[in-house]
Amino acid sequence: MKNIGQEMYNWAVDLFPINRSLSGNGVRETLHYIKNIIPELNILEVPSGTKCFDWTIPKEWNCDDGYIIDPDGNKICDFKINNLHIVGYSTPIDKDIEFEELIEHLYYIEEEPSAIPYITSYYTERWGFCLTFNEFKKLKRGRYKVRINSELKNGNLTYGEIKLKGKSEKEIFLSTYVCHPSMANNELSGPVVTTALVNFIKLIANRKYSYRIVFIPETIGSIMYISKNLDAMKKYIIAGFNITTIGDNKSYSYIPTRYGNTLADKVSKHILQNTDYIEYSFLDRGSDERQYCSPGVDLPIATICRTKYHEYPEYHTSLDDLSFISPEGLYGGYDKIKKAIELIECNQYYKINVLCEPQLGKRGLYPTISTKASNDVVKKMMDFLAYADGNNDLIDIANIIGVQAEELFGIIEEMKKANLIDVA
Amino acid sequence: MKNIGQEMYNWAVDLFPINRSLSGNGVRETLHYIKNIIPELNILEVPSGTKCFDWTIPKEWNCDDGYIIDPDGNKICDFKINNLHIVGYSTPIDKDIEFEELIEHLYYIEEEPSAIPYITSYYTERWGFCLTFNEFKKLKRGRYKVRINSELKNGNLTYGEIKLKGKSEKEIFLSTYVCHPSMANNELSGPVVTTALVNFIKLIANRKYSYRIVFIPETIGSIMYISKNLDAMKKYIIAGFNITTIGDNKSYSYIPTRYGNTLADKVSKHILQNTDYIEYSFLDRGSDERQYCSPGVDLPIATICRTKYHEYPEYHTSLDDLSFISPEGLYGGYDKIKKAIELIECNQYYKINVLCEPQLGKRGLYPTISTKASNDVVKKMMDFLAYADGNNDLIDIANIIGVQAEELFGIIEEMKKANLIDVA
Amino acid sequence: MKNIGQEMYNWAVDLFPINRSLSGNGVRETLHYIKNIIPELNILEVPSGTKCFDWTIPKEWNCDDGYIIDPDGNKICDFKINNLHIVGYSTPIDKDIEFEELIEHLYYIEEEPSAIPYITSYYTERWGFCLTFNEFKKLKRGRYKVRINSELKNGNLTYGEIKLKGKSEKEIFLSTYVCHPSMANNELSGPVVTTALVNFIKLIANRKYSYRIVFIPETIGSIMYISKNLDAMKKYIIAGFNITTIGDNKSYSYIPTRYGNTLADKVSKHILQNTDYIEYSFLDRGSDERQYCSPGVDLPIATICRTKYHEYPEYHTSLDDLSFISPEGLYGGYDKIKKAIELIECNQYYKINVLCEPQLGKRGLYPTISTKASNDVVKKMMDFLAYADGNNDLIDIANIIGVQAEELFGIIEEMKKANLIDVA
Repeated sequence: MKNIGQEMYNWAVDLFPINRSLSGNGVRETLHYIKNIIPELNILEVPSGTKCFDWTIPKEWNCDDGYIIDPDGNKICDFKINNLHIVGYSTPIDKDIEFEELIEHLYYIEEEPSAIPYITSYYTERWGFCLTFNEFKKLKRGRYKVRINSELKNGNLTYGEIKLKGKSEKEIFLSTYVCHPSMANNELSGPVVTTALVNFIKLIANRKYSYRIVFIPETIGSIMYISKNLDAMKKYIIAGFNITTIGDNKSYSYIPTRYGNTLADKVSKHILQNTDYIEYSFLDRGSDERQYCSPGVDLPIATICRTKYHEYPEYHTSLDDLSFISPEGLYGGYDKIKKAIELIECNQYYKINVLCEPQLGKRGLYPTISTKASNDVVKKMMDFLAYADGNNDLIDIANIIGVQAEELFGIIEEMKKANLIDVA
Repeated sequence: MKNIGQEMYNWAVDLFPINRSLSGNGVRETLHYIKNIIPELNILEVPSGTKCFDWTIPKEWNCDDGYIIDPDGNKICDFKINNLHIVGYSTPIDKDIEFEELIEHLYYIEEEPSAIPYITSYYTERWGFCLTFNEFKKLKRGRYKVRINSELKNGNLTYGEIKLKGKSEKEIFLSTYVCHPSMANNELSGPVVTTALVNFIKLIANRKYSYRIVFIPETIGSIMYISKNLDAMKKYIIAGFNITTIGDNKSYSYIPTRYGNTLADKVSKHILQNTDYIEYSFLDRGSDERQYCSPGVDLPIATICRTKYHEYPEYHTSLDDLSFISPEGLYGGYDKIKKAIELIECNQYYKINVLCEPQLGKRGLYPTISTKASNDVVKKMMDFLAYADGNNDLIDIANIIGVQAEELFGIIEEMKKANLIDVA
Repeated sequence: MKNIGQEMYNWAVDLFPINRSLSGNGVRETLHYIKNIIPELNILEVPSGTKCFDWTIPKEWNCDDGYIIDPDGNKICDFKINNLHIVGYSTPIDKDIEFEELIEHLYYIEEEPSAIPYITSYYTERWGFCLTFNEFKKLKRGRYKVRINSELKNGNLTYGEIKLKGKSEKEIFLSTYVCHPSMANNELSGPVVTTALVNFIKLIANRKYSYRIVFIPETIGSIMYISKNLDAMKKYIIAGFNITTIGDNKSYSYIPTRYGNTLADKVSKHILQNTDYIEYSFLDRGSDERQYCSPGVDLPIATICRTKYHEYPEYHTSLDDLSFISPEGLYGGYDKIKKAIELIECNQYYKINVLCEPQLGKRGLYPTISTKASNDVVKKMMDFLAYADGNNDLIDIANIIGVQAEELFGIIEEMKKANLIDVA
């Protein structure tokens, strides 16, 4: 357990400095790092200009360098020190300008004076720099040199996809995003937890379901992926999770699907029920569930996360750094999604195959010495059997009889062996 | 706004002195007054003796005069001073009688000693006088002269009907009653608010629905009207309101239909949700909803009113006078029904016609400068679109996303223009 | 009323000393006692070894005598003084043993030092004695003589069945058990209340439903009965009650069926709604509802009782004696089941047969003098009629309009006579 948490954290440390954006070499570098861990990852590209429903794949953006030289000759807002200093998708610039012109291209947060904000301008061409309000306050009038060595050109949108076969064609879907530069909870927690989950899924012996896992840029990436795969997704996906902001060790959160009535919702609520967690409304959505759960797409994809995007002050700033996440935090989030997957893998409709209560004694299922623990097991067994009427799946039964589904795994095995229940 | 409230109040002042009852010239005079304002009003008559389901149209009653001369020669209980002094449908009388006999024909309220009660005897022939308990206490033994110059004869029940065509044959129905003598909230508030609403409806450009509006005597009038029009009412009426006690400025109230599950209920609750109002049970009914919502009739007709009949001490007494209602009170009630009508007129099932979220920016729907107000608009737009899946009407969407439907009117127009949504 | 309570108590006094068990002469003697009261009782037998679903009818057990002689020659644990001293289904024994061996066959309750526990071993052959912890503490080392004069042999399981015909083939079912030795609330309250109810049922003039009543050993008896009668039970039984622990005068309790959604549940909740009672979950079940409500059996059989089995400290000990029950307690339980039966007998779907409200006056149903009491009757009548739309049965209507169904019995009769309502 410790190992997995630490391993995920180490991956995050490696990936942190890379300048990811909607497109470009930072995304490619990130995906190749993950492919080193999971060779099954396919790295795919879609050309700029491709139509995806209401959207068009934008130009590819790359940036090498960027900075400002102040009137005293000091280099500030240096991209090489923190890639958040450059507004994402900034057009190239190399110019001397007056302070009055410069400030129209500067972004900072007065309320969080030590944070560099994260700003992008994907669909309107502009250039800009982000800096802390503390830095901003020190600027004086005069002539500044601004330089951004970026390139905006027809290229590709890059994403990763993994498909793992199970006994059934039906799929469990995981989606995470790789489009944010150096931020830890939003975003690196997502790809590293997803990577660890793929390792876990590969180890499920005789897994029942197939798995589809994507590493995409947020919004345009999910729209593109849906536009290419909608029919298959609607046909095969029985439940899925959007994996984001899952690395801090504060709270747990759940964001439902549009009507909160899918298997993903049922599983999420069951998994979290004895945990202290916040149940959000779909109105609080803000990540790729906006696309997966849109009308006509209607996929059963919910979000289980730690402290939700938008709900912590460090969100979308340089303060969402590697100190904001932890091995424990990552492991906690990983473990909830893992439990959700395990539960879906063994969630079945069960049906008792005797009429009236079975005689447990003659099957050796009734304790010869009655203790509180053995009574609890018999009670759970009889309660399970009372509702194993073919109309309830495992989660329903667990909810009705007031236990966690995983407490029933052993009992179910025993009763299957004793030929008392069948899968309905 | 002020004008409409004052105009309604002025009509009530004009109509107040008229001696209305179930039938007779007071009803005719009242309807002709309204026809002067709304020429579309048809004044119709049904003969005494006509069968209406379980009921029979009673005789027509008219009364010119009535009074008592006390032993000292003073005229008391003078109909010409207050028409509530005569029990409605009193048979004629002209007789000298002893006090002991007289008191069997006197009605007063000990608990409200300054109020003349409103008493009728439509279906049992008798005569009587109503007076305040204060007046009653002053009466002394001796010989009294009683005179009621009334006539009870085969005649007609008189009522008014307005039909206004819209694009659809489907109808919105308004019902109010004109059978009470000089009382203001119960009853004149009903006909004057309904009259003002007809003026409003006539001004709705391109109105979608047709309208059926009736001014009838309570109970027997609605039973008669249903018996003549049931098939058409069941076929065409999609929602309606019984309009009564709608002129005081105290509270708002809503009385549901039999199961509280019709469009009229949905609209009423939505319109009132941010107002301080009392939601009654159908068990609290007491006006024509008793007929409209009876088994087999089952019309979608609810009541939005101000302080409900039976729920104020002045109800059915001389204290329910012109000081009990006000231009502001009448306007408040008018405005709620007007909003209900406007909402029904534009309530539709909407369906987004792109898959995934649309790109608002390229359509000029995304603010170029982001402010709290513009963010709120974008949030409402995206939330509206998320639930515009063809399964929700405007009210459903407004309820889900937590806004008043009218806040969405402008957004809907913009999105229609941008070709983002269709009527489902 | 007093008489019936006292009569039931007297029966319990007579039946108390009999040594009942799963099978044997104690059961036969008990059933013959009841047959003296109800000649319609059929006493039936099923041979040992008969298969019943997952179970097999065990051997028949009889016991004449049993006791221990202590080292000082005193007779203790004397079956003739209290039959709870012998573990039910003890094998015969006649032997001198050391204290150290004896104590492995002794049962007592440290927490209830003055109670003899009730212990059985139906499906594992063993012998044993039960005694109070106070008695146990006095025992000293030495040689003891133990003797149990019992017999365990192939024989029969004995039970009683009564069938009473009504106009319909549809049945109301009552089940109680006769397998516990000298204990009062659990068990004699069950058979004596059931016996009194049979007397009541026989007196229902023109009863609508047929009745099936069984006196069986718990668990194996209900399993056996269901295995022989399942098709008929599923075809005919519309509601039933398991009758147990119904003789103390403390609380009332209700145990629902598996999903709490049958007529038996609806009736139970309506009958008890204005009584202080405990609503248990089906997870708290512990008597024959475990069989009647098992998957595939699915019979509509709930439990209305007084203080529920397992929920009082005297349960399954010698302290559950004749002082724990009372004529008042038995009568209270009897009365609830009686009311439930009466309610089912007259529960119908009603439909008004006029459109709009009827004119009560011309039918003499409207009071000529209006008093609070007469207004209440008119209000109930009009409310009843408002919901007598063919979609609600009597209990539904009573629940909607907020009265006890029995308050409507008189009104219904009047309205039937006035030809205002029909059975739907």
